[in-house]
Amino acid sequence: MFKYALLSRPLTSYINPTLLVSRSFSFPFRFSTTSSQYSTNRDKYWIKPTIMERVCVYGSGNWGTTAAKIIGENITKLPNFDHKVSIYSHFETFDGVSLSDVINKTHENPKYLPGRKLPENVYATSDEKEALDGATMLVIVVPEQFLESSLRSIYKNIDGRRLKIISLIKGVYIYKDKIMTPTQVIEYALKVTPSVLCGANIANEIAGHEICESTLGSFIKSEADLWYSLFHSDYFRIRCIRDTYGIELCGALKNVVSVAAGIADGLGVGSNSKAAILRVGFKEMRQFIYHRHPYTPPEVFYESCGMADLVASSLGGRNHKIAVELVKTGKSFAELESEMLGGQKLQGPMTAKELYIFNKHEGITEKFPLFTTVYQIGYEKKDPSEIFNVLVGLKLE
Amino acid sequence: MFKYALLSRPLTSYINPTLLVSRSFSFPFRFSTTSSQYSTNRDKYWIKPTIMERVCVYGSGNWGTTAAKIIGENITKLPNFDHKVSIYSHFETFDGVSLSDVINKTHENPKYLPGRKLPENVYATSDEKEALDGATMLVIVVPEQFLESSLRSIYKNIDGRRLKIISLIKGVYIYKDKIMTPTQVIEYALKVTPSVLCGANIANEIAGHEICESTLGSFIKSEADLWYSLFHSDYFRIRCIRDTYGIELCGALKNVVSVAAGIADGLGVGSNSKAAILRVGFKEMRQFIYHRHPYTPPEVFYESCGMADLVASSLGGRNHKIAVELVKTGKSFAELESEMLGGQKLQGPMTAKELYIFNKHEGITEKFPLFTTVYQIGYEKKDPSEIFNVLVGLKLE
Repeated sequence: MFKYALLSRPLTSYINPTLLVSRSFSFPFRFSTTSSQYSTNRDKYWIKPTIMERVCVYGSGNWGTTAAKIIGENITKLPNFDHKVSIYSHFETFDGVSLSDVINKTHENPKYLPGRKLPENVYATSDEKEALDGATMLVIVVPEQFLESSLRSIYKNIDGRRLKIISLIKGVYIYKDKIMTPTQVIEYALKVTPSVLCGANIANEIAGHEICESTLGSFIKSEADLWYSLFHSDYFRIRCIRDTYGIELCGALKNVVSVAAGIADGLGVGSNSKAAILRVGFKEMRQFIYHRHPYTPPEVFYESCGMADLVASSLGGRNHKIAVELVKTGKSFAELESEMLGGQKLQGPMTAKELYIFNKHEGITEKFPLFTTVYQIGYEKKDPSEIFNVLVGLKLE
Repeated sequence: MFKYALLSRPLTSYINPTLLVSRSFSFPFRFSTTSSQYSTNRDKYWIKPTIMERVCVYGSGNWGTTAAKIIGENITKLPNFDHKVSIYSHFETFDGVSLSDVINKTHENPKYLPGRKLPENVYATSDEKEALDGATMLVIVVPEQFLESSLRSIYKNIDGRRLKIISLIKGVYIYKDKIMTPTQVIEYALKVTPSVLCGANIANEIAGHEICESTLGSFIKSEADLWYSLFHSDYFRIRCIRDTYGIELCGALKNVVSVAAGIADGLGVGSNSKAAILRVGFKEMRQFIYHRHPYTPPEVFYESCGMADLVASSLGGRNHKIAVELVKTGKSFAELESEMLGGQKLQGPMTAKELYIFNKHEGITEKFPLFTTVYQIGYEKKDPSEIFNVLVGLKLE
């Protein structure tokens, strides 16, 4: 939002000298010598308008509440930001009371982030219009299956083209012949170029101020700087990369690899065999991402969103756990999901399946033996020990 | 060794038809059309002399005995190899009897690899001359501090220039202003270009036929193929890379990173923080290796010797354990080494120290904050929690 004021004095008297940038650029303008006829007073001084950014966190789940907590803590130190941070919480109840009311009263989200106090400048609402009102920066953090419907109502309630958006969604949309990442879906729907935040981040650990890192992907420096200032803190350290698709694909594919690591652990092998499975998985992730986005910067794989996220989620995490159970009980993923998670779908098995269908359509299943084997073990009752067939020898070329 | 025979019949009558390779190469010779005047009978057929390779494993420790076991199992399937494999065992006793005698009698190394049977074609001897007699392929697997003296006596006993050598030594020699890897030392001493085998390999797990991978580094294809055939098996899968220095440096530097991971674990942090430490360590490994050997192929970091070894040794292993104790007890590395290992030096702390001295001499300590911090925590009583200072934010450039 621009702050307008009626001018009762000459314009120059309003100008704050600190906001003036004199025109002594060190780089030469292309037409600097020949275009003196274009030089007007307006060009001489740049008046920086005071833009008030307003942040809305769209989603009040575990990760959304944590994001709001981080932003709420950081935003009070930032100039040019409205210190109020709104959380849009899809209407749901907790102990018979609306969750957003509970959050506003207790400054805590007892349903998704119990025991962690939110700063007082964070408020929740189930009224989407109210949450989005005046928002210039939108943190989208909804479960991936709700992204489309969320975008539809965001589109209705706000002019999307003015928004700076960051996606905290982990997941990817794989169709038979097409792969779309959440930012691609957002870009398609709202005609903006979103940023993305993805890394080895377990919401509860971050909310407990355990030190960790995350990768912020963006193509737009000015936006990346704003998001950096909102998220970076002593305990949550942000590193920026000029990429989004590679980062998101890393976040999705690593779930398949952590299923594979879980299978290895379920078989009770030592750390060498497990490390070998991780290595192959990491290689296939790279291979697949380069197949889709050849211009992905290699740093993506060496940042938190790449190697660190892979390692963290292969040490523990739900995808890992369900795969251990798969091997131990001999049940299928579908059975285990209904037993262990009340029917909730886990991303690892789901992505493995979708990926297999996609790869089959492209005719490249053999290029990704680990991804293919995870699918076959999970859905086609292949023997789990065949996971080790992906470790093949290689002679010197 | 060539097998010589007195010719009593015309040469051609000795030729084994299976050894003939007709001159039907699929690629065009450069002068094939114009150089008919050079074509002689000798060019028409290549007689492949039967070279008998003979393998000696120099060292009877945990890893050396395991290597002899693998080679002993594989060699019986290979043509042109002497099926006897010798182990040179530095004279030592077990229960009052010479260790090599015990190995030959029981086909087991009760001191360093108890409970694992060696194949019958493997024999041990403390007589270096006998072990090296006729050897054409030498597996050097001695503790790094004994390499120099071992090379001296190998030099005396055998013509080193005829040998094919592979180094299984994990370690690196860091002086104030110089870094030498074991293969560089071997190359300097014996004037051969050794290969190297390095990966996420715990000897006991491999000897127990757990599936794992290893990286074979070599610059010479013919030698790499021979070593591949000796080591590659169902449970020990070899992948070759055309490099040696990068592989060896990976194997040495990863020990420092696993100390850092141990420090993180000792502080009781979650998997996110640990994964972040691993990420930074992996990055510094790459950075350091590229600093020393700019032509290192990037695959080095994605193979078993790189990422997999790092992950495996950061999950457990002695360097990791001692660092956990360091944090918990507040003792120094020197005290812990004498308590936990009877004064035996561990590679992680040692390498961290040597590396610090080297980096200080080069004036690059600040480029490697993790390596430097590990040294300072271990030797300068820096607070262990300062390990997290290496996780720095990074804005988009």
